[in-house]
Amino acid sequence: KTGRVDMNHGAGGRAATQLIEELFLPAFDNPFLRQGHDGAALPLPAAGRLVVATDAHVISPLFFPGGDIGCLSVHGTVNDVAMNGATPLYLSASFILEEGFPLADLKRIVDSMGAAAREAGVSIVTGDTKVVEKGKGDGVFISTTGVGVAAPGVDTSGANARPGDVILVSGTLGEHGVAVLSQRESLAFETAIVSDTAALHALVADMLAALPGREGDLHVLRDPTRGGLATTLNEIARQSGVGMLLWEADIPVLPQVDAACELLGLDPLYVANEGKLVAICAPEAADAVLAAMRAHPLGAHAARIGAVTEDPHRFVQMATKLGGRRVVDWLSGEQLPRIC
Amino acid sequence: KTGRVDMNHGAGGRAATQLIEELFLPAFDNPFLRQGHDGAALPLPAAGRLVVATDAHVISPLFFPGGDIGCLSVHGTVNDVAMNGATPLYLSASFILEEGFPLADLKRIVDSMGAAAREAGVSIVTGDTKVVEKGKGDGVFISTTGVGVAAPGVDTSGANARPGDVILVSGTLGEHGVAVLSQRESLAFETAIVSDTAALHALVADMLAALPGREGDLHVLRDPTRGGLATTLNEIARQSGVGMLLWEADIPVLPQVDAACELLGLDPLYVANEGKLVAICAPEAADAVLAAMRAHPLGAHAARIGAVTEDPHRFVQMATKLGGRRVVDWLSGEQLPRIC
Ligand SMILES: Nc1ncnc2c1ncn2[C@@H]1O[C@H](COP(=O)(O)OP(=O)(O)OP(=O)(O)O)[C@@H](O)[C@H]1O
Ligand SMILES: Nc1ncnc2c1ncn2[C@@H]1O[C@H](COP(=O)(O)OP(=O)(O)OP(=O)(O)O)[C@@H](O)[C@H]1O
Ligand SMILES: [Mg+2]
Ligand SMILES: [Mg+2]
Ligand SMILES: [Mg+2]
Ligand SMILES: [Mg+2]
Ligand SMILES: [Mg+2]
Ligand SMILES: [Mg+2]
Repeated sequence: KTGRVDMNHGAGGRAATQLIEELFLPAFDNPFLRQGHDGAALPLPAAGRLVVATDAHVISPLFFPGGDIGCLSVHGTVNDVAMNGATPLYLSASFILEEGFPLADLKRIVDSMGAAAREAGVSIVTGDTKVVEKGKGDGVFISTTGVGVAAPGVDTSGANARPGDVILVSGTLGEHGVAVLSQRESLAFETAIVSDTAALHALVADMLAALPGREGDLHVLRDPTRGGLATTLNEIARQSGVGMLLWEADIPVLPQVDAACELLGLDPLYVANEGKLVAICAPEAADAVLAAMRAHPLGAHAARIGAVTEDPHRFVQMATKLGGRRVVDWLSGEQLPRIC
Repeated sequence: KTGRVDMNHGAGGRAATQLIEELFLPAFDNPFLRQGHDGAALPLPAAGRLVVATDAHVISPLFFPGGDIGCLSVHGTVNDVAMNGATPLYLSASFILEEGFPLADLKRIVDSMGAAAREAGVSIVTGDTKVVEKGKGDGVFISTTGVGVAAPGVDTSGANARPGDVILVSGTLGEHGVAVLSQRESLAFETAIVSDTAALHALVADMLAALPGREGDLHVLRDPTRGGLATTLNEIARQSGVGMLLWEADIPVLPQVDAACELLGLDPLYVANEGKLVAICAPEAADAVLAAMRAHPLGAHAARIGAVTEDPHRFVQMATKLGGRRVVDWLSGEQLPRIC
């Protein structure tokens, strides 16, 4: 009636049912969700391993250049499922709404979420809606959990990197974080910087398809989200007990992102991405994987950026453009809050 | 260092990794979670249907008589999986923490969650941790998603109730809501009222086991959470296109809950439960199901409370203790906020 979320929308009664039926169900529509049960009953995949991934999304602002919390919450979870080398099948979505939030904004978000799910070929099969008092939340928080299936023989865990392996990234780095930050600070750049938010599972499928019968040569997949490439590589180095050597000159960063980072005092290697992946593969597989990446629209700017080394200290090092070498450490100190 | 959640705990860098490794992983410990990947790779169940359910938990206060948001977030989702007649296997857990929240309280919650999961025989296989600024959240919100498997032949959807079916509840109603509310209002009752929060899947398994080869006679399962029994029955009546007739005298409510509801101006039929279920079954199955319920500790006070009727208006009616008859409607007007 008021056009805003009120406490009754979260109380499980008539207002809650109406919100779900009028706003959420039409946007997500699919037969599983329409079961309207306490959970969704779904066909079991025939073979492989089940993959489950989850992320809460608390990004601020809710709308940013290139996307919004709705599509982001689909892409983020689809990507974590895909990083396990899996095909995402189903999503759950749980909403925490702040009292007073405009229903029109909620509808935009939910429509964007539904569109992203359809585009990714996943069904939002079950959900939940809670409301907290004004000042106890921040508009909308969305937690998504993804369920997928990985084919037998696929194992892309962070512990699989081996000395000699090749490190690839699927494209230019830092767009998401810079887009969100520039929106937050009301910065306008000459060339617009938009978030790279996108679902990567089709790219991953193409990469695996490029290694028929030797999918195991794709050792590691990770999406460099919070903390950016630097953090992701340090995590992998630690989990695998290896070092890494990157070639700065080969790391793709858009010039306008470089310039914006300069201005904002950021290093693009530490800035979040939402539509990029890091792949580490056996050297003999690198050409095939890189070619498959470049053949996909989301991997057009894929690049070979370094190699895995033997290093008891598990350092990620970088050969700089100036010919030096430095350690790319875990970020310490202030980081970018609420970037996803 | 400060003993409190700070923004860096949500930024994906070293502080975040440390929080996960020192606080979450020890509490939830299991080999799937220890994979430390973007998601968890899990054995696929052999047969049946996959069941996925999700709930966000925003209960206030976080600690209440009989439980806390941690165990509640396990029980709530385990129960929604169980209401599909499924065995819960895996949980994901995503946390939204408010800056400044005491880490000691977080540890209590997370330990309680881990204990509840172990007790229920489910593994928390993957998680996520985000932090929002002080005043943009409320301590801790937890979204859990459960994945389980339902045996072939089991279908407990809300659309399956048929005229003549028997309506059963697994025990006394209203404890959870009254316990939370009394804590919130600092009310002390002569006899302590504690939440009934509990995992119901073992009870459900026993009920299905009581119907060997005719599991389909158990038509509907639902947990009467937000909105209580009245709301749950109205939902089922609507989904199945039937009416219901309840016998007030047979609906189990503890005397102290009745008294507290009187004081608080509540009707126990509309108050949330977190460890109770409603079962609707074919009349010829009712005795076996009720006996199985009563044989389980969580169903000791199970009762037959009514029958499904033919009614184009889909009314839930109640034969009152005084010999009258009234409609038990959907709740309209103010409801209890943040009860789960
Ligand atoms: N935001 C949403 N988007 C899509 N579906 C939703 C959403 N919120 C709820 N639903 C669906 O509506 C139905 C009722 O959800 P509800 O949360 O009331 O059930 P519940 O989890 O059993 O109850 P409670 O949350 O009180 O424990 C379910 O089928 C659920 O999947
Ligand atoms: N609260 C938690 N409880 C248990 N495990 C957690 C928790 N938070 C994170 N994890 C685990 O820690 C690992 C890293 O999680 P993280 O959220 O950083 O990964 P991600 O989802 O790939 O990154 P992002 O959230 O930035 O998209 C994963 O294995 C995840 O399951
Ligand atoms: Mg339920
Ligand atoms: Mg993620
Ligand atoms: Mg729910
Ligand atoms: Mg990830
Ligand atoms: Mg529920
Ligand atoms: Mg995460």
